Amino acid sequence: MSILVVGSVALDSVETPFGKVRDVLGGSAVYFSTAASYFADINMVAVVGNDFPEEHIDFLKSRNIDIKGLQREKGNTFRWEGRYGFELNEAHTLNTQLNVFEGFNPKIPQEYKDSEYVFLANIDPELQLDVLRQVKNPTLVACDTMNFWIEKKPKELRKTIEKVDILIINEAEAREFTCEPNLVKAAKRILSMGPKTLIVKRGEYGALMFAGSSIFHAPAYPLENIFDPTGAGDSFAGGFIGYLANTRNLEDGNVRQAVVFGSVMASFNVEDFSLNRLKDLTYPDMEYRYREFKKFTHFEDI
Amino acid sequence: MSILVVGSVALDSVETPFGKVRDVLGGSAVYFSTAASYFADINMVAVVGNDFPEEHIDFLKSRNIDIKGLQREKGNTFRWEGRYGFELNEAHTLNTQLNVFEGFNPKIPQEYKDSEYVFLANIDPELQLDVLRQVKNPTLVACDTMNFWIEKKPKELRKTIEKVDILIINEAEAREFTCEPNLVKAAKRILSMGPKTLIVKRGEYGALMFAGSSIFHAPAYPLENIFDPTGAGDSFAGGFIGYLANTRNLEDGNVRQAVVFGSVMASFNVEDFSLNRLKDLTYPDMEYRYREFKKFTHFEDI
Repeated sequence: MSILVVGSVALDSVETPFGKVRDVLGGSAVYFSTAASYFADINMVAVVGNDFPEEHIDFLKSRNIDIKGLQREKGNTFRWEGRYGFELNEAHTLNTQLNVFEGFNPKIPQEYKDSEYVFLANIDPELQLDVLRQVKNPTLVACDTMNFWIEKKPKELRKTIEKVDILIINEAEAREFTCEPNLVKAAKRILSMGPKTLIVKRGEYGALMFAGSSIFHAPAYPLENIFDPTGAGDSFAGGFIGYLANTRNLEDGNVRQAVVFGSVMASFNVEDFSLNRLKDLTYPDMEYRYREFKKFTHFEDI
Repeated sequence: MSILVVGSVALDSVETPFGKVRDVLGGSAVYFSTAASYFADINMVAVVGNDFPEEHIDFLKSRNIDIKGLQREKGNTFRWEGRYGFELNEAHTLNTQLNVFEGFNPKIPQEYKDSEYVFLANIDPELQLDVLRQVKNPTLVACDTMNFWIEKKPKELRKTIEKVDILIINEAEAREFTCEPNLVKAAKRILSMGPKTLIVKRGEYGALMFAGSSIFHAPAYPLENIFDPTGAGDSFAGGFIGYLANTRNLEDGNVRQAVVFGSVMASFNVEDFSLNRLKDLTYPDMEYRYREFKKFTHFEDI
């Protein structure tokens, strides 16, 4: 099974109370792909500038991520600079330079067009729709978005959402998009727009899945050392969609396990800057943490 | 088994986006006792003024709550006035009149002194210590506190905490009390001060239990209609301690079930103002919701 991901590749500068890094590898497509690469074959479509370091290309290749779709344009790579306080739950953006990402026009290579799973990371919903026009009848399409698009392009976003099977957004976005403060009501409203499944990301409080009448909650893993939350949401999506693609099973019980694997990958990601922790996990590492999630949430029925 | 609870009885005026009530029954001892009364015999020690309506006395008696310890003093009952916005996660206090609660000096009636379980609701830590001096060798002591005491009487609070088996506080308080932003580290620090178990309440995000190396998470129930969060924490504590007293079992698996019953009682409480929802639950209601919590969090092991 193969997953097509369309999103950003970035050079991030991040400061947390625990350290500081400059121009390290980041971006939604990179976090997603790296996490998902433990479960499935990845076809990545994104754009970088001619300043993009070769070592990052080597890294992506080392994870078996196919980068035929990684467009290289004249100019600089997308740069994001942010800072987190002790609470670590909110990024304060200090600087954004879109650079070549501003004119990103995703072209899906012929070989990717029959990808069975598609993840539309957070980009302009018009581009997300354009990607869907280019692919052939995928088994499952999931997408992410952000407050910027909810505010600037609500109609276009609505059109994208109508066409996806799974929407993955954060809690505040779900409330803002539906103008509904109650999350259960907001979720129902979103499910009535088209998606069969909604995942609501809640940062340090975990994730909720809504699908039909089924609601499932997975907490975030209780880590003693959280280093940098950047990319946690995309790592979650990578583990989640990766597991679904790997198992080719959309039954409720399996989607719940996928949510937990998403949470596992997000929990590893925040343990270090950039892809430092996600880059060389072992399957026993992942399985051990999955079982820790099980212990962490288990109680007997009455 | 009997539970002694020492705390406040109040007349609350509350405004939420869904309605408004004036001078309704409230207070930590009342919410705790009502929730716990479904599981155990309750001995309540608190104070009211001579304006306290007889109907509330009748209500407490109807729940089989023993009120020999309810002191009646000259003056008015403690009054609290608060407002919640759409987010419902934070109360904005508009007015507090301590009235007779200001001079509260809990006297434990002779018949209560051998209560096996003791819950010290949020009152001055010096009074909490004084209660502990009056009781005879209880099986289990739990206590709550708040930011006010953490800031004003940290030493006295520390002395109380050294003497309790279970501390039940909210997330921000755990962080503030230990000056440690990471919750897992904050929990370790608190457990090193004396308590064998720490419960961290996270409002709409549920509750965490820390005990030795065991960590357990129960989410809050995903309700479509949350009416008024007042008393949710004390209702949680009532269900939690009530279940422990009822089952007389402090093994890890049983404490986890107690956390879920605490969450069940809190989830009912927020569905209406004051004690309107908690006042006449049935056991099938409670068991049904417990099983809903199970469905809501269940996933298969790998």
